[in-house]
Amino acid sequence: MDKNAPFQTYDDQTDAATCAPRLAALRVELAKHGLDGFIVPRADEHQGEYVPKRAERLAWLTAFTGSAGAAIALKDKAAVFVDGRYTLQVRQQTDTKLFDPRDLVGEGLATWIENNLPRGAKLGYDPWLHTAAAVDLLRGSAEKAGGTLVACETNPLDAVWSDQPPPPTERAIPHAMNLAGEAAESKRTRIAEDVKKLGADAAAITLPDSICWLLNIRGGDVPHTPFALAFAILHQDGSTDLFMDERKSSPELAKHLGNAVRLKAPSEFVPALDAMKGKIVIADPTTASSAIFDRLKKAGAKVKPAADPCQLPKACKNAVEIEGARNAHVRDGAALSRFLAWLAREAPGGHLTEIDAATQLEGFRRATGALSDLSFDSISGAGSNGAVVHYRVTRSTNRPIKKNEMFLIDSGAQYPDGTTDVTRTLIVGEPTAEMRDRFTRVLKGHIALATVRFPDGTTGAALDAFARRPLWEAGLDYDHGTGHGVGSYLSVHEGPQNISKRPITQVLKPGMICSNEPGYYKTGAFGIRIENLVVVSEAKEVSGGERKMMEFETITLAPIDLNLVEPRLLTEEERDWLNAYHKRVWETLSPQVDDETRGWLERATRAI
Amino acid sequence: MDKNAPFQTYDDQTDAATCAPRLAALRVELAKHGLDGFIVPRADEHQGEYVPKRAERLAWLTAFTGSAGAAIALKDKAAVFVDGRYTLQVRQQTDTKLFDPRDLVGEGLATWIENNLPRGAKLGYDPWLHTAAAVDLLRGSAEKAGGTLVACETNPLDAVWSDQPPPPTERAIPHAMNLAGEAAESKRTRIAEDVKKLGADAAAITLPDSICWLLNIRGGDVPHTPFALAFAILHQDGSTDLFMDERKSSPELAKHLGNAVRLKAPSEFVPALDAMKGKIVIADPTTASSAIFDRLKKAGAKVKPAADPCQLPKACKNAVEIEGARNAHVRDGAALSRFLAWLAREAPGGHLTEIDAATQLEGFRRATGALSDLSFDSISGAGSNGAVVHYRVTRSTNRPIKKNEMFLIDSGAQYPDGTTDVTRTLIVGEPTAEMRDRFTRVLKGHIALATVRFPDGTTGAALDAFARRPLWEAGLDYDHGTGHGVGSYLSVHEGPQNISKRPITQVLKPGMICSNEPGYYKTGAFGIRIENLVVVSEAKEVSGGERKMMEFETITLAPIDLNLVEPRLLTEEERDWLNAYHKRVWETLSPQVDDETRGWLERATRAI
Repeated sequence: MDKNAPFQTYDDQTDAATCAPRLAALRVELAKHGLDGFIVPRADEHQGEYVPKRAERLAWLTAFTGSAGAAIALKDKAAVFVDGRYTLQVRQQTDTKLFDPRDLVGEGLATWIENNLPRGAKLGYDPWLHTAAAVDLLRGSAEKAGGTLVACETNPLDAVWSDQPPPPTERAIPHAMNLAGEAAESKRTRIAEDVKKLGADAAAITLPDSICWLLNIRGGDVPHTPFALAFAILHQDGSTDLFMDERKSSPELAKHLGNAVRLKAPSEFVPALDAMKGKIVIADPTTASSAIFDRLKKAGAKVKPAADPCQLPKACKNAVEIEGARNAHVRDGAALSRFLAWLAREAPGGHLTEIDAATQLEGFRRATGALSDLSFDSISGAGSNGAVVHYRVTRSTNRPIKKNEMFLIDSGAQYPDGTTDVTRTLIVGEPTAEMRDRFTRVLKGHIALATVRFPDGTTGAALDAFARRPLWEAGLDYDHGTGHGVGSYLSVHEGPQNISKRPITQVLKPGMICSNEPGYYKTGAFGIRIENLVVVSEAKEVSGGERKMMEFETITLAPIDLNLVEPRLLTEEERDWLNAYHKRVWETLSPQVDDETRGWLERATRAI
Repeated sequence: MDKNAPFQTYDDQTDAATCAPRLAALRVELAKHGLDGFIVPRADEHQGEYVPKRAERLAWLTAFTGSAGAAIALKDKAAVFVDGRYTLQVRQQTDTKLFDPRDLVGEGLATWIENNLPRGAKLGYDPWLHTAAAVDLLRGSAEKAGGTLVACETNPLDAVWSDQPPPPTERAIPHAMNLAGEAAESKRTRIAEDVKKLGADAAAITLPDSICWLLNIRGGDVPHTPFALAFAILHQDGSTDLFMDERKSSPELAKHLGNAVRLKAPSEFVPALDAMKGKIVIADPTTASSAIFDRLKKAGAKVKPAADPCQLPKACKNAVEIEGARNAHVRDGAALSRFLAWLAREAPGGHLTEIDAATQLEGFRRATGALSDLSFDSISGAGSNGAVVHYRVTRSTNRPIKKNEMFLIDSGAQYPDGTTDVTRTLIVGEPTAEMRDRFTRVLKGHIALATVRFPDGTTGAALDAFARRPLWEAGLDYDHGTGHGVGSYLSVHEGPQNISKRPITQVLKPGMICSNEPGYYKTGAFGIRIENLVVVSEAKEVSGGERKMMEFETITLAPIDLNLVEPRLLTEEERDWLNAYHKRVWETLSPQVDDETRGWLERATRAI
């Protein structure tokens, strides 16, 4: 990967005109194999959010480039499934005469298959690209329709994708102790203990963030996330088979991995599963490929379905990782402040666009000298584009940043010591009373979550409503979660914790990093989101307190636009929080920025 | 039932000395049947919270009288399982040399069986007294231990309980249209539609509150809840077989039920299940007896496990039921105000006890002329007894209501137009600063929940934390739910809604009645709870509002003790709520009470 090339590009990467010939070619190939249809998910063998170019099968076939979705091609009809974030985008990108856009969540593949698969039809799927849980669901639907679901030995889409890129082979590198905070050997030993406690001989680890965390390695196989793609089998004794292309290795990496980690070719993974006869093997049905379950069962192994044993330990960052995250956020906050100061100077001139802003922000982050990548494509939305929750600017959607309009920028960086994710919304010129009211309500929700103290054992689901109540009082809400987990120089979206309406049962544990990002979106007008990252930590005791309590430490540092705050809507405590936060931003960042930025920062962080 | 007899008694109903001979007799009986053990739940065939005397098997065997629990008797050991509410009580009541007190929730029967059932042992259970879901769990545990779970044709405990009371035969009466608001025929028709939509031919209805609601009947078979115990089968055409002792019927009831409801003897229920061959029958695995599933399967019926189809419609009260609830709460609030005024006069004299208070309150409720029963035994707790969350006063625990101590009274009434449940906590004399601080935090939580507006689709779990946050801020919490559903002249605890930490997915729907009852308990010192009932209703629209919003209407009317409120801890909005609530209490109740009470009420509801 050329580290000097921009991490974000703004070209329209796909073309609806390719849909017809590609779908036709796929159908010819399916007929050769006696199949009546095929399911194309937006997933690779590892079920990560970012996938290598080789795995962008959904975009290749349908021209839809969203980060989640699927397509089903039958003989005489085809559908593309997207969630609420992408209902507009999919219609702009795909050929809707060929692919009927459907609701991924409300309807889902399962219901569509039930209603559309012809009786007796054979519907193919690539068992490496679907989780075991997903396949169970799809099989039930196919059978309800009177058809059958057929696992394909080889992927028929790959067969017709003549210029499909090869699997990536970017160098994997050690993630040093001063960043990881715990030696890989220690991690392997304690996770192996957990595997043993569950009564298993080994665990098949398939999530790339789990493997990178477990072995303290990072790589460059996918955009925006330092994954080294691989499979691993962790044995009860802590030794590990790592199935990874040898070209990604190096003498340095081999030394780092040590003797207890056996580097093997990816092609040896299936034979290794086949050799597990009589063994009890943990695999996660919600994240591991169906193919892994199939192979293990066929080999005579006993599969124990359980959560990936690395996910929870990985989510609970240690002191070194937390300190790294704090440092990364100071660095990132300084870059973001330079950007916001630049924007405050330049935007009123009226010549800036969304792409200009995103490019400039990438430049300031790059100038820190520590940037490995963006943690995702910046969402740079002016005016009505700000109301598109997962907007990604391209040359064809690029919009000027106009006077008296709001501008929302949600962005993040990958630094070796930490992953950042921050959203700021600002006004160029003068806001309307409605803008100030809505912004202040979002801010009140943000503060309510930032300041909550809660007992050990509390879930994110129990706290979510604090961030929404000021909007609820005005009959408003937002249709996304309030907080997601964030990795440590890993994926910007990670589980198992979550702060949302979804009734998940994972409690918030010390060391977990989460986003705090309430928002408000007025379609066709403007969007607001205020996002900081927080770390779950044990709360200081208060006099008379009886329970072990947790609190959030806010680690993101950047001014919140005071031009959008309506002070009369804030309580005294809320105003105190805002002023204290801005004081901390000023004190921490002012030594880190140039004079021009410092002058702006002082005004931007003034007490109100 | 003698309607003039007190609804609450204060005698110790059991005696630990009976444990030894009864356990011995049960073991002899088990040996006769080749059983090595037997499970005794605190449940009848209908899984209601209140059971007839005949079904108080757990109390008969162990002397433990709590409202939930179970026992297991093996050949050489026995255990009694209770939840956190009853850990103290069980040790006072049972013979702990015979019955080892265990944790019903943390450990549970399942884990205990795994660890204690001898290999090869046969553990008996009465399949009419356990739900299908519970039996699945118990069977798994018995098998893990290398034993077997054996369904008993007849209950071996009943065989040795020589003076076991007969099944109750209290008169069932029609619940009139001016109370029910919807004709039974209409209910049967629409629930039958739901059954049809689920693809079933019929539904086995086993919960007494479902049957009483569906057929608009009430009865007197169990304490404190107007249940007519029965089973029912609702057919797709809306016609219903009602299996109920004929002695409970009357010409009036037969006329009310009409021709579409066929009254049959309870002994005909099993043959009716046996006749369902080839039919698809809904049964609720979480509430219906395992025996019902066993019979249906054996008969060749297809059992469709689904929620009891009456539970959700029953929970959503219609306009007549809500108006009835409001009226019942005015009547009850007047009675409670008379009581509180009396207590304010008498308690400082220092001669009152917890039993005096509960007796006097029952008297004031009875004097309304509309009282059918208490909705549960009043929790009348002075000083440290107030900290026992589910305290029930008896002659042996009865405590004087002392000066400068707090007194908590949680009570409710069954009126034909509505069921009430209210808790007030007050101080006799002067509170400490700690008492005022804790009481005010509980009040702040109560107000936070009472005033929340929330979007359609919100669960109670999402709102629970609002009631806790003021306590969380001081490092405190309470170990019970914040709100339970309440029936309409039915059970004071009903589902499927709930406001608690439990991640249930049932959303709050218009017409649901819930309690709002945060608390705080300082063991050995005092207890605080402030409980009002609320009705979920559609919120009035606010200008600029975009979503359909819900709100709570508080229907309980009684003063909240201002002597315990620390005004400096209240926000202006909280103070406004309290003053507006007290104004409403005054305006509504002052015309309903005697002069002496009115004088007290005016002071008790003064603006602060």
